[in-house]
Parts: sequence; C-alpha cells; structure tokens
Amino acid sequence: MRLALGVTYRGSGYRGWQSQPGGQTVQDQLESALSQFAAAPIHVVCAGRTDAGVHGLNQVVHLDTDLHRECYSWVRGTNTFLPPDIAVQWCQPVPDRFHARNLARGRRYAYILLEAPVRPAIEQAAAGWTFRPLDGQRLREAAQCLIGEHDFSAFRSSHCQALSPVKELRRIGVSRHGVYWRFDFEASAFLHHMVRNVMGCLLMVGSGVRDVAWLQQVLASRNRSLAAPTFSPDGLYFLGPIYDADLGLPQRTAAFGWLPGDTGVQE
Amino acid sequence: MRLALGVTYRGSGYRGWQSQPGGQTVQDQLESALSQFAAAPIHVVCAGRTDAGVHGLNQVVHLDTDLHRECYSWVRGTNTFLPPDIAVQWCQPVPDRFHARNLARGRRYAYILLEAPVRPAIEQAAAGWTFRPLDGQRLREAAQCLIGEHDFSAFRSSHCQALSPVKELRRIGVSRHGVYWRFDFEASAFLHHMVRNVMGCLLMVGSGVRDVAWLQQVLASRNRSLAAPTFSPDGLYFLGPIYDADLGLPQRTAAFGWLPGDTGVQE
Repeated sequence: MRLALGVTYRGSGYRGWQSQPGGQTVQDQLESALSQFAAAPIHVVCAGRTDAGVHGLNQVVHLDTDLHRECYSWVRGTNTFLPPDIAVQWCQPVPDRFHARNLARGRRYAYILLEAPVRPAIEQAAAGWTFRPLDGQRLREAAQCLIGEHDFSAFRSSHCQALSPVKELRRIGVSRHGVYWRFDFEASAFLHHMVRNVMGCLLMVGSGVRDVAWLQQVLASRNRSLAAPTFSPDGLYFLGPIYDADLGLPQRTAAFGWLPGDTGVQE
Repeated sequence: MRLALGVTYRGSGYRGWQSQPGGQTVQDQLESALSQFAAAPIHVVCAGRTDAGVHGLNQVVHLDTDLHRECYSWVRGTNTFLPPDIAVQWCQPVPDRFHARNLARGRRYAYILLEAPVRPAIEQAAAGWTFRPLDGQRLREAAQCLIGEHDFSAFRSSHCQALSPVKELRRIGVSRHGVYWRFDFEASAFLHHMVRNVMGCLLMVGSGVRDVAWLQQVLASRNRSLAAPTFSPDGLYFLGPIYDADLGLPQRTAAFGWLPGDTGVQE
C-alpha cells in the first residue's frame, strides 16, 4: 500500500532534507519516526529536497507499507516520535503509480525578507534580512526578465545533480507586507541553490547596486561566477509540489498562515 | 547620561529576562554586550521581566553611562556582541528622572495560539497550540469578566514578588486570523505568570470545558488552585510598556509585523 504524507518543518536545526551518514537531516528524523511507529523500516521519497536551513510547509513524501492503520493514526503516531520542529500534517492513500517527485508538475517556494536598519531577532532564521532599501518596481522588472524557459546555469550550485540546467520559471511574485517583502516562486523544478542565487541577484537590482541589463547578461552568460553570492537560507520556505488535481492531495497546511502575505486561500 | 533602549528577543533559548547566577538570561546577554561595547560595566533596568521562553518585541531598558556615542552606534555596536535571537532596535537619550519600570503607565502582551488538529512545527516555540475548537463568543465573554481592577491572586504564581495582587486589567482583545487566535492584553502591570494563567482559563471556557460562571468564581476565590494550569509560554509576546507620549519613545519595533493580526499601526 502506498501512502502520501504532507510534512512541515523548521529547517534551522537540520543539515537539509536529504539523509546523510551523520544524520541530523529532516529525512533521517522522519524515517526514524515512521519506522518507530510502523515497527518496521520505512523509506520515503520526497517531492523536493531542501538545503540546510530551508523550511518546508507542505513537503510531500510517499512510502510503501504493509501496515494498515487509519490515516489520522499515521499522523498522530508519527508525530509523537518527531522533534518539535517537524510534524506530519496529513496522510492519504495514493495509487501505486503515485511518485512524490516524478509526478510533481511544479514546485513553489516563498522567500520572506526583512527590510530594516536592524537585523532580525524574533524572526531569527525565519526571515532573510537587508538593510538596503528596495524598490518594488525595480524588483518586479528584474523578476520579469527571468520568467520563462531558460538555461539557469548562472544560478546553479556546483553541487547540483539535476540532469539539465533548463527549467521553466513560471512566476516570481513580489509583494510588500509592512517591513517584510515576500517573493513567491513557481517553476517546473529548481536547480540546487537556484532560489537563493536568484534572490541575491534580485536584491542587487532592487537596491540599485546593479540594473536589469546586468541581470539579463548574467542569465545569458550561464556563468555562475558572474551572479551575486548565494543569499541566506533563513527566509526560504518550500511551499510544496503541485500535482494533478484529480489526486486530491492537500496543497496547503496550517503553517501557510504563519507567513506574512498569506492570503488564506489556495492560489 | 541616561539612555533608553528598545530590545527585541526570541525567548525560547533563555531562562527568562532576569539575570541569574548561571547566566543564560536575556539580561545577562544584553548587559554583557553593552559592557563590551562601552568597555565598562553596564547595568540595565527593564520595564517588565519576562519568564523563560517568553518573547519580547519592545522591551525597554534604561542605563546610565559616561560614554558619548551616537544612538545608532549604541544600537549597531551592541548588536555585534549579541546572539542572533536578541537585538537592540533603538536608543534614545532620556531625562535623568526616566525609569523604565517605574514610569510605565501600563504594559501590553499578545498571545498567539494555533488552533489545529496537528501541533505546531514551523511555529515551534513561537505559538501556543490547542487541538480543541474554540468559540469566539465564549472567549470574549470570558475575557470580559476579567476586565477592570481586581485582586488577581487566583492567577498569580507562588513565586510572584509583586507588592499587591490588585491590578487593573484594561483590555483583552480576541481576534482570529486564519488558523491563529490572537489575544491582546493591556494592564497597569501583570503578576508573575498572570497572562499564562488567564490564557489557561480562557481556553477552558472557549472550548466549552467550563463556563463563564466558573471563571467568575475562580476570580472571586483568589485561590490559585481553582484556576486552570499555567499555559505554555510559547506564544507569549511582551509587546512593551506604555509611557507618557511626551517622552517620545517608540511604541513599536519592526518585529510587531511578524505576528498574525498586526495592524501595522500603533493602537
């Protein structure tokens, strides 16, 4: 029997999603908790691996099991074995053909950025920070020139394992909510560090250090060394994958409401 | 020369505000950072001591110093010596008669509560949690019967050092923002654990376990053992003290915008 689960986590305390020999990753914690609940080894496949320090709001995983339990038991039982900064939010049976990564038609991220003279304290590790005033019009123009299908090699980490650097970036929403900026990204898939590298460049343009023509050159160059430094993971949230609606999987979790600018409705 | 400073902190990692022999309190961190910046011992007096795990958005302290530096230097310099979950937000010279605690005409707290079947993960240590559905009308009726000048002994911790248990509770605002409830408290001053004990009782009534008449009896009894258990500190935020407007001290910091239900304007 195949199950899909939605998982929310605060990434600050972990070395990213993907299991590592030394442990202390979100996948390690989740598989350990599921295996304790099921009293059998459980392996999960996720929709999108997140970097160290990046948060997940509706990370989706699938797993195979012979254990028959009500879905709410999987949720509540597994959560008793998880640390307080990780929680399974929902569980649903899915067809055997379901695959959390391969069936995702797109992925969404949000970046929350504090623009203020003083660094974050209460939002420590939960929001990025710039002391440079940003111009919304410049940010939107910069974002616009990245939209579409492009070779994003200039925004790709050297550790990226993707087969192709060509991705379709469908949307970058830029909105302001008091002292916070919110950037909403949607793409077919993202390269390693792609959102953080794009953020670094958007802020160069938005703060007036560089102009839009520079960003167009960076994109066209496919040369990572021309782009801005990789921006902080602190404000980066993996909102989750997008699947065909007929699968009936939840696209939101309660945690979406925690972020500035959440509309409370599914887009 | 006397200075007033506004300080924001995430309380999760600290044993409360007040300095202790073993350290690891917010006051210890702040005094250490200020003393390093000033290259001389600095002692601070705060507007309201917060418990272990309670957050501060605009905690105000005063200090005396012979060191003449621009206010922005005090802010930025001190912050370089503070851990990432504490930051000085502002600094202003004040008259020698200013006293952060004695001149406060009132204090404000907010409590952020997640109402959801699954416990918090992303908001871990930043929001309280109840799985019991709450009724807004019942919550408001319960809150109303606590408003006014009362002997709040039933909501007072045995460790409370206040001279009198009589306080004026001016306001309890109850509002809902998606999956989060927000409770806004304003009083002349608060007893030790008072907000957390009141929260426990409000939730007993709001979830239908007890009725408003029970809460009235608890208040009248002045007997701590009749009230609900002390609720979690996780969602509790000290918004800050209220001073006479002619002192011209900031009533808000950037961090106010982080909380669900913040209106972005000073009330």
